[in-house]
Amino acid sequence: MRPQHRIVIIGGGFAGLNAAKALGKARAEVTLVDRNNYHLFQPLLYQVATGGLSPADIATPVRALLRKQRNTRVLLDEAVDIDLQKKEVCLASGAALQYDTLVVAAGVGHTYFGHDEWAPFAPPLKTLEDATTVRANILRAFELAEATANEDARRRLLTSVIVGGGPTGVEMAGAMGELAQHTLHRDFRTFDPRSARVLLVENSDRIMNTYHPDLAAHAATALKRLGVTVLTGRTVTAVTEASVTLKSNDGKEEHVPAATVIWAAGVKASPLGKILAQGAGIEPADRAGRAPVGPDLTLQGRPEVFVIGDLASVKGKDGKPLRGTADVAQQEGTYVGKAVRARLAGRQVKPFKLFDLGTLAVIGRSYAVVDMKLMRLKGFPAWWVWLFLHIMKLVSFENKLSVFVQWGYSFVTRDRSARLITRSGRR
Amino acid sequence: MRPQHRIVIIGGGFAGLNAAKALGKARAEVTLVDRNNYHLFQPLLYQVATGGLSPADIATPVRALLRKQRNTRVLLDEAVDIDLQKKEVCLASGAALQYDTLVVAAGVGHTYFGHDEWAPFAPPLKTLEDATTVRANILRAFELAEATANEDARRRLLTSVIVGGGPTGVEMAGAMGELAQHTLHRDFRTFDPRSARVLLVENSDRIMNTYHPDLAAHAATALKRLGVTVLTGRTVTAVTEASVTLKSNDGKEEHVPAATVIWAAGVKASPLGKILAQGAGIEPADRAGRAPVGPDLTLQGRPEVFVIGDLASVKGKDGKPLRGTADVAQQEGTYVGKAVRARLAGRQVKPFKLFDLGTLAVIGRSYAVVDMKLMRLKGFPAWWVWLFLHIMKLVSFENKLSVFVQWGYSFVTRDRSARLITRSGRR
Repeated sequence: MRPQHRIVIIGGGFAGLNAAKALGKARAEVTLVDRNNYHLFQPLLYQVATGGLSPADIATPVRALLRKQRNTRVLLDEAVDIDLQKKEVCLASGAALQYDTLVVAAGVGHTYFGHDEWAPFAPPLKTLEDATTVRANILRAFELAEATANEDARRRLLTSVIVGGGPTGVEMAGAMGELAQHTLHRDFRTFDPRSARVLLVENSDRIMNTYHPDLAAHAATALKRLGVTVLTGRTVTAVTEASVTLKSNDGKEEHVPAATVIWAAGVKASPLGKILAQGAGIEPADRAGRAPVGPDLTLQGRPEVFVIGDLASVKGKDGKPLRGTADVAQQEGTYVGKAVRARLAGRQVKPFKLFDLGTLAVIGRSYAVVDMKLMRLKGFPAWWVWLFLHIMKLVSFENKLSVFVQWGYSFVTRDRSARLITRSGRR
Repeated sequence: MRPQHRIVIIGGGFAGLNAAKALGKARAEVTLVDRNNYHLFQPLLYQVATGGLSPADIATPVRALLRKQRNTRVLLDEAVDIDLQKKEVCLASGAALQYDTLVVAAGVGHTYFGHDEWAPFAPPLKTLEDATTVRANILRAFELAEATANEDARRRLLTSVIVGGGPTGVEMAGAMGELAQHTLHRDFRTFDPRSARVLLVENSDRIMNTYHPDLAAHAATALKRLGVTVLTGRTVTAVTEASVTLKSNDGKEEHVPAATVIWAAGVKASPLGKILAQGAGIEPADRAGRAPVGPDLTLQGRPEVFVIGDLASVKGKDGKPLRGTADVAQQEGTYVGKAVRARLAGRQVKPFKLFDLGTLAVIGRSYAVVDMKLMRLKGFPAWWVWLFLHIMKLVSFENKLSVFVQWGYSFVTRDRSARLITRSGRR
């Protein structure tokens, strides 16, 4: 008997998981490695950070998702190095995995642009732990505001700054506005939660700059209605425990006392991106350190190595790199699964082609913007599109019925029932 | 205008929360202090520890629960000292609260009987953080078992020891048996999760020794069906990272290699118990450090100080102290609320009288034991009683609809959807 073809997948995000699923019936030995035991539905992370959903509502054990694929095993471990020569992946546990085909979908983290000293005061929003830390920070600031008698201190405690006006920052800002304006408004005795300030800081001249300008303008209006102040053309020059310093394009500096800062700017590829580029003797595709791949999503000169998801820099039809969304990652994952199966069967593999579904973002309780090829929507209709797509996606992973129960409950009551301060947050 | 009567309640558990609720219409200024921002439905903590429920399913912000009581404020802080002379509570934040009436419901923690060095290896099950730590430990042990090739190591990883055969230990053991036997059985490739061993260690001669012996025997049988080994007449003499040492009553020592140890034995009162006793010039009621109170639940010589819930040692009709259950704590809380209102109105206060509802414990998916005055039940009928009572209680706190969705889903599929390894657990 011929030994089985060994496929190693690094990462259980949208890209890696979809690749594994598409390989479920392949005549191969599939190993998926992730440093977490769960697949995370990252687009809803901001809802955990604002107490609308629980971690388990947006995270499902990878093992359970791939339970029925008898050719697949799941390892809780972290890939720390890849030897393209020896076709070997080194794991943090010390073990090594040999591969015939490698799929790298290790994703991206965040960067403070050389200011790692800001990290303790401005947590990002990439992992479940980040989300529960941010949640604790936000809620604890309100609690401290209730206890203090000092007006300046209270003002500081009730000021939040979100850095980065992309979809993540916008959704987070909307949810925080909703929290202060509608969820907590009767919960405190010494101040009105509606006086809380949420500042959304963006360094370019408009928020959501990958969206159509009209939609971005609508999003800005919707944020304003939720009490969010949008500050464009500002760069963050300092973050401390007590404040954020902003510099506007005309050089003016502004000092904002703020207790809560959330980092939604700056993306940095997994270190594996650099390792792959070095191993293949090429340069990373961009400053973030993504790995450049060809039309078939493989590394130059390494047809057995696929790079997909946020870690890959894939050129679209217009020559620009494809955006880093769940949707793109999923399609890449599915493509790789099919491509590998075609190869194993000796068939020709067509290049990857994105079926562009567009992008969308939700702002507050029932407002969204949808930017698709065929249509642009805003407001309540767009929110329905958002809801429908998310219901479809969540259901495809697992019967996350409780999410819809939570959403239905929150929609009616404007309550957010997962408002827990657990472990130590920032303060 | 006469200044308002100031009531300070320490603790937002079953006792403190019910006292606050019963004081909602009192002509008084009520302040509830808790070190967490949520009320915890502790009886279901074992379901969080085994991935059946999420933290937010069993925890609700105290602030939200008391939102409508305009006479009540909630402070996130910790009471560290009480000055009975000055009628003052000192808080961890440095602030102090003056009171006219004090209600102390600070509860109990756990003790390792002088072996605090066991703590890192044998987490208890008292807080939400404990539950997520235990959950991570259990799940990580299975993950490591999947990765190892060493049979001894795997056997150790698949062995769990629960110390303490009271209701907490029994419910936890049942849930762990259920997890290994029915939830995870198809998730691993290198071993059969059904081979996992769960040992329940009790130092007296039977588990659940506050229950009727017949029910305890039924519980033991039900545990056995879930693969749990009950070891009675054994004391723990050592816990390390790799093992537990047990000593049986005849002096024999046994060394059990085990990766997961859960501490469900040994209760120790909040330090406030001792502080109250010293302040009142009396001895603590027991070795655990509970405060002795009279028939009206006040401290001797201090009619303005009530002690309720697990921290109080209240003599029942039979002269024995009342047990430390949610049910008793709730009744005490409600009594105190009424008593204070009666006093404020100049009315006579009758002594506290427990309406004894009995006790119950659930074992696995659909088996429970119920020990009531009027009846003793076991099996499926008892489970219905358990379910009904918990539904009533959960609903009375908040519309925790998602709990029933989870339960319905788990009942049908035997899945447990909150199987997340978050933060660093033990290993």
